[in-house]
Amino acid sequence: MREVAVVGIGMSQFGELWEKSLRYIWSEAATAALADAGIDKVDLITVGCMSPGLFIGQEHLASLLADELGMAGVAGARVESACASGGLALRTGYAEVASGLSDVVLVTGVEKMTDVDGGAATFALGTAADQEYEGFHGITFPGLYAMLAQVHMQRYGTTREQMAQVAVKNHANGLKNPHAQYHLKVTAETVLGSTLVADPLCLLDCSPITDGAAALVLTTVDKAKELSGGGPVVKVTGSGMATDTISLANREDLGELAAVRRAGERAYAMAGLTPADIDLVEVHDCFTIAEIMATEALGFFKPGDGGPAVERGDTAIGGSIPVNTSGGLKAKGHPVGATGVAQAVEVVAQLRGTAGERQVEGAKIGMAQNMGGSGGSSIVHILEVV
Amino acid sequence: MREVAVVGIGMSQFGELWEKSLRYIWSEAATAALADAGIDKVDLITVGCMSPGLFIGQEHLASLLADELGMAGVAGARVESACASGGLALRTGYAEVASGLSDVVLVTGVEKMTDVDGGAATFALGTAADQEYEGFHGITFPGLYAMLAQVHMQRYGTTREQMAQVAVKNHANGLKNPHAQYHLKVTAETVLGSTLVADPLCLLDCSPITDGAAALVLTTVDKAKELSGGGPVVKVTGSGMATDTISLANREDLGELAAVRRAGERAYAMAGLTPADIDLVEVHDCFTIAEIMATEALGFFKPGDGGPAVERGDTAIGGSIPVNTSGGLKAKGHPVGATGVAQAVEVVAQLRGTAGERQVEGAKIGMAQNMGGSGGSSIVHILEVV
Repeated sequence: MREVAVVGIGMSQFGELWEKSLRYIWSEAATAALADAGIDKVDLITVGCMSPGLFIGQEHLASLLADELGMAGVAGARVESACASGGLALRTGYAEVASGLSDVVLVTGVEKMTDVDGGAATFALGTAADQEYEGFHGITFPGLYAMLAQVHMQRYGTTREQMAQVAVKNHANGLKNPHAQYHLKVTAETVLGSTLVADPLCLLDCSPITDGAAALVLTTVDKAKELSGGGPVVKVTGSGMATDTISLANREDLGELAAVRRAGERAYAMAGLTPADIDLVEVHDCFTIAEIMATEALGFFKPGDGGPAVERGDTAIGGSIPVNTSGGLKAKGHPVGATGVAQAVEVVAQLRGTAGERQVEGAKIGMAQNMGGSGGSSIVHILEVV
Repeated sequence: MREVAVVGIGMSQFGELWEKSLRYIWSEAATAALADAGIDKVDLITVGCMSPGLFIGQEHLASLLADELGMAGVAGARVESACASGGLALRTGYAEVASGLSDVVLVTGVEKMTDVDGGAATFALGTAADQEYEGFHGITFPGLYAMLAQVHMQRYGTTREQMAQVAVKNHANGLKNPHAQYHLKVTAETVLGSTLVADPLCLLDCSPITDGAAALVLTTVDKAKELSGGGPVVKVTGSGMATDTISLANREDLGELAAVRRAGERAYAMAGLTPADIDLVEVHDCFTIAEIMATEALGFFKPGDGGPAVERGDTAIGGSIPVNTSGGLKAKGHPVGATGVAQAVEVVAQLRGTAGERQVEGAKIGMAQNMGGSGGSSIVHILEVV
């Protein structure tokens, strides 16, 4: 298996981009990543996108976007695992370079979510749940995560205040990220006082509807060393992917995210690392409770200690394991197909030491954890400076 | 790069399966392939599916289907390249085994197209074209392929009768395939006299709307040899993937399918083979003209000789290069996400010598060519008995 490195990163602005189409925001991210890499020729473009059919009436994105970039002819692959589509785009590109099938891959993620009204967006997002056994009965994602939160509160004593602190921290980080959808300071009082969406989750416990795109350029470590001119090279050392039951009703245990645990275990095993080795992590905080549960599933904290850890400041920049330095899905925004790629973009920026005001000092090893549905799938990557 | 073999094949019935859901028909194909391989444990499930969001209101299929099979926990990846989604599922599984990331992959394709009415199905299929620059103006796929046919007729003198002979041959082959949607004998007069859909294409020049699923089990050639007990092992020796402009308006030349040519060239180069080495091929005959153009793009006939070749009987079972022995999309049916996998299932059956009445004598090397949109993407695989 060949060693694989990230040699370019790029992002569009995240937000409600009324004036830009999917292909436009995607091209912004793609061209930024190619320029960053100093590469203008790729073998393959992967596109993580959850539901362009329902959001903009367009499938076949790999053909559309290769063409848009003036690269018609290259190989193209759109991949989907609900909100973990971006992580899957990275995994797919990784396998192509590792196997030797491709030498250079442009890994991208994109979603244009604001071209439909709220009801249609809720329906589109709901297709990540089991339509026959969950969606049909009327439940949507805030309700599904609210049930996970209720179990966590009952079993471990996790509090509303702890969840609110996730939002406070991520919005504080988002203030330092120019690409973030929101640049606003949020207090625990504001979160706790925001509109109740699904008990116990309030509006500010939820990630937003976002338009955005992100991109990475992958190639072999050997080629990356040539390109870097002696500078740091960021290598992908772990890639783990797992599923769980799609519906909560069939889940063995609602108190943990087993797909995240399994994907994490596979990534750690591949990289030969443990949670203690990781300097920072981007986790999939689609709801505040999801961040708490993800940090437990990845082994950073014992089950039940994810909530207290946030209160202790362990997950802040400067804490023992900074979580979501980018602002996370909560503040940076959550264009569902782009999220997994944007997480890796943040980790690479941190490992390069170019994360500006939100830089984690001395970061050498980072992790990105992307998740689909209510934990029906998860994809975890570990990146290291070599 | 590790060598990869196909050790199991399976298919559901193809047709209008009103009484069965997507997960049901998918499970039929998946369990058949696993039973055929004698394997009950896989590392990854890939799912080629074009638009489950628009057809059945369900995304996140890899999680849903791993769970349905009682395999929640394994890695899962849904992939999409419009009607070439099945070929992409095979490519993705191939890269995983070749790289060493996975040892056993269940490669699947599925589409449930008859749960919506004709207008909604036409819209869903239309998302494979450029929605902003083609779909918005009202064109659908019969019209797009009719334009390709008109150019081919004008430039090369290809005739309506030659196109009709594609349908005649493929329906004759379909009569011998128990999984095919249609078991009916069709004459050139019937095709030419059927309702005009988009000049020059009549109803019987078009592939149908179909429900269906197909599956393959991939593993290393070493493991395949253990499993086969000395029997024939079918190896994947070539995999080529390419795009072209998604819209016909931007296409350099409407007289050829450049994505098919490029994907074919990449597959031939990887396998170290030429068209003369191929014993049979499944091509993407979504319309009769598409089969003629695909056989030219893959180098079996010179440009313009694809039509006469059908009339000469070169593409019939017993001809110089049997094309679509399965009945093709035309007679076997075209559940869009399943088609690319079903093509490989047919090739493997032929190479094993188990294709029954439609067996190509002495077949040792076969090819499967899958296509998205009006040629916006194509994926070609070459399989060989070793």
